[in-house]
Amino acid sequence: MSPSSTQPDPTTGEAGRAAGATPAPAVDISGVPDATRPRRPVLSDINDTISHPGTVRINVQGAFIVDDEPVTPRSEDYEHDPRDIRLPNHTAVVSHVAVDIGGSLAKLVYFSREPDEGSIGGRLNFIKFETERIDACIDFVRKLQADHQQLNGSAPEELCVMATGGGAFKYYDKTKKALGVEVIREDEMECLIIGLDFFITEIPNEVFTYSEECPMDFVPLPPQPSSIYPYLLVNIGSGVSMIKVSGPRQYERIGGTSLGGGTLWGLLSLLTGARNFEDMLKLAEKGDNSTVDLLVGDIYGTGYNKIGLKSTHIASSFGKVYKMKRAAEREAEDGCNGDFKNHSEEEEVAGSSELPHTPSKFRSEDIARSLLYAVSNNIGQIAYLHAEKHNLPHIYFGGSFIGGHSQTMHTLSYAIRFWSKGTKQAYFLRHEGYLGAVGAFLKRQPRNWGRRNSFEGGKRSSV
Amino acid sequence: MSPSSTQPDPTTGEAGRAAGATPAPAVDISGVPDATRPRRPVLSDINDTISHPGTVRINVQGAFIVDDEPVTPRSEDYEHDPRDIRLPNHTAVVSHVAVDIGGSLAKLVYFSREPDEGSIGGRLNFIKFETERIDACIDFVRKLQADHQQLNGSAPEELCVMATGGGAFKYYDKTKKALGVEVIREDEMECLIIGLDFFITEIPNEVFTYSEECPMDFVPLPPQPSSIYPYLLVNIGSGVSMIKVSGPRQYERIGGTSLGGGTLWGLLSLLTGARNFEDMLKLAEKGDNSTVDLLVGDIYGTGYNKIGLKSTHIASSFGKVYKMKRAAEREAEDGCNGDFKNHSEEEEVAGSSELPHTPSKFRSEDIARSLLYAVSNNIGQIAYLHAEKHNLPHIYFGGSFIGGHSQTMHTLSYAIRFWSKGTKQAYFLRHEGYLGAVGAFLKRQPRNWGRRNSFEGGKRSSV
Repeated sequence: MSPSSTQPDPTTGEAGRAAGATPAPAVDISGVPDATRPRRPVLSDINDTISHPGTVRINVQGAFIVDDEPVTPRSEDYEHDPRDIRLPNHTAVVSHVAVDIGGSLAKLVYFSREPDEGSIGGRLNFIKFETERIDACIDFVRKLQADHQQLNGSAPEELCVMATGGGAFKYYDKTKKALGVEVIREDEMECLIIGLDFFITEIPNEVFTYSEECPMDFVPLPPQPSSIYPYLLVNIGSGVSMIKVSGPRQYERIGGTSLGGGTLWGLLSLLTGARNFEDMLKLAEKGDNSTVDLLVGDIYGTGYNKIGLKSTHIASSFGKVYKMKRAAEREAEDGCNGDFKNHSEEEEVAGSSELPHTPSKFRSEDIARSLLYAVSNNIGQIAYLHAEKHNLPHIYFGGSFIGGHSQTMHTLSYAIRFWSKGTKQAYFLRHEGYLGAVGAFLKRQPRNWGRRNSFEGGKRSSV
Repeated sequence: MSPSSTQPDPTTGEAGRAAGATPAPAVDISGVPDATRPRRPVLSDINDTISHPGTVRINVQGAFIVDDEPVTPRSEDYEHDPRDIRLPNHTAVVSHVAVDIGGSLAKLVYFSREPDEGSIGGRLNFIKFETERIDACIDFVRKLQADHQQLNGSAPEELCVMATGGGAFKYYDKTKKALGVEVIREDEMECLIIGLDFFITEIPNEVFTYSEECPMDFVPLPPQPSSIYPYLLVNIGSGVSMIKVSGPRQYERIGGTSLGGGTLWGLLSLLTGARNFEDMLKLAEKGDNSTVDLLVGDIYGTGYNKIGLKSTHIASSFGKVYKMKRAAEREAEDGCNGDFKNHSEEEEVAGSSELPHTPSKFRSEDIARSLLYAVSNNIGQIAYLHAEKHNLPHIYFGGSFIGGHSQTMHTLSYAIRFWSKGTKQAYFLRHEGYLGAVGAFLKRQPRNWGRRNSFEGGKRSSV
């Protein structure tokens, strides 16, 4: 391979792959650095860091996701994602952290050295906070500042904060004042795309497809980073954004919907006793949506219909609730000898699957499952339609809504397959909630860092 | 015009317009029959009816919507639509009624003669029942049978029932047994399209566009019935069906969503005190969705954002509920000196528009408005995307969900304009809930009835 292959490609502005690099093996969680990849000069990195704090290159050689490690105990203030990314070849000081402050959650990414004497390198850590408890997030960064000072002897001001998401603006003054450091704000969509490109092209075992038979079928790293375009990113946080990505740094928000995670969490907090996301998802796992949803079979009676939809197809989400509630109210008004009892018996005669339980009571589990289906199906259909309109074959789902939850992924995957008749594929990520935070973290980089140059570093907006 | 113009067009299968017919005037609610239109031979119709009950032609010459008549008192069992359609030139006996039994509502259409001695012709009546009270609907038809017998002297068996919608199958045995008559089942989608084509091409002042400046801007009758194709019908009942119509009897279900009227009614019956649709819509009119929805401005702080969306744009429907509920719970746990109070003060400092009221209480009005916006916006976006994919310039919204409610129409119209950047237009109908019932009613017709042949009559499936 000629030395010129490391120069930027004039057509794409992208640099070629480093000399001597070979295509990555499909799956490599061994952590053993690939001997054929070039190593970065460690001493110069450290010197760079001291003279220009925060501008160090992250060495992603041999990066892998840490599986099978003991789970960090969950704090009341935050949730530490157990899937750190080990960077066994990164030895330089990292003097920045990155936070993506969304409508519901603030996601923090930071680098830490390996605590064991024998281990080299370090790892990326992933933590999320509820945005309304932004103070806990700021406190956490303050602790990182102190650690940074202790470990590296530099002044704590030198741990700078990269921030993105709407909260980067809303909480800018507060964060800057509380931490006494520079807060560098980065464009939200740009960070999402940089983060996603990084995960797709650099991290083995990060991207996967979902099916019931094979819930986590990892997608090999692409032979060329440029081969991943064009694609659609569907980022599901409180709301949903759909971003068309045509190439590195070429993106456009083409759609979205307000029916996202915030809708699910908000309605379920009103309708069920669940007080956090995990409890809501656990409820949904145990639920049966057919007690609240009106299915095609409920409308047509047993099986028969001419509109080509299965009898288990959901015709109307929560479509049974109104009539059952009305019937229960009528029963309460009439006593048990009134209109309702009469009606109920007749419903059974007509072969309806309705009213298997007390009509006035709806199970939280069933409500949770119905709403999870409704929101996921809806996102899937809209994503498909936008992908179709813009001719995008690959659809990546990111954002904290998914949370590795199998029902959610199943519904999204199913919706994409159903609507596209199998022509489009849904992809998921193990760090789906951290695209923006990782993108902001990586923006603090000189040009052409790392193995595969999956993004251009460069200009920072420190507005 | 040559006589051959009444023959079916070989390319479309459509019959030409009746000889001597002129294009209809744009707006004509005078009820004065157009003298240039052909009259039907009344006596032969009556003879036909006697020998072949139920096969009479409906004479739609001079048909118009009855405005300004006293509203029929609403029964507990049903709701009588005040907008009858007067058929001043129809004199023959009509010996059929039609019912469209959906997941939530059963819609009935029947013909009645003018009670006054001086008035000629009759009118189409429109009544809806809740599907769960199907017995009330059957009782009503039984009364029509008795009236029919009394007026026409025929045996009550002769008033046959045309039925469509899922309930035509589910309640087939029940209806047939209870009424002792033939129940002729018709395809649901076909009836919707026949009904819609009839309203678009035959009834002046039926179709309109909505804007805040001009809430009901009537669309003139088309110069040629064939000029209305292709179009998209978005039928919003309990669930939503989207049907592409390429020509008379050429249609295909291309999409739909389970987030429809049933979702709104079901969730609002759980979340608010409202016990019927009208109360829910009244609540929505008085609501302020910004107390429960997370707006773009809430995420970005005051005004500023780079994603090109207005600060009042809804980022997440119900996106404020979860965090406010959590905050209220925390307050209850901590007392007023705890974490929450602290946080609340800081929120104000950061310029948030949140928490203007007690966080643990959400107003029913605000919830109703938020959900109405969410469902309507969502349907609007999906309708636009399907119309775009299939290159359909006109989008007609039908179904009982709309119910002539201005906020719903405003949201749907706005969504179509927003997403299509003004290239597509939303159309509404004054009898939007009765498309299927009218279609079933009209199917009981010989070929080439009426003025403009907006449908082919013909084969009946009496499965």
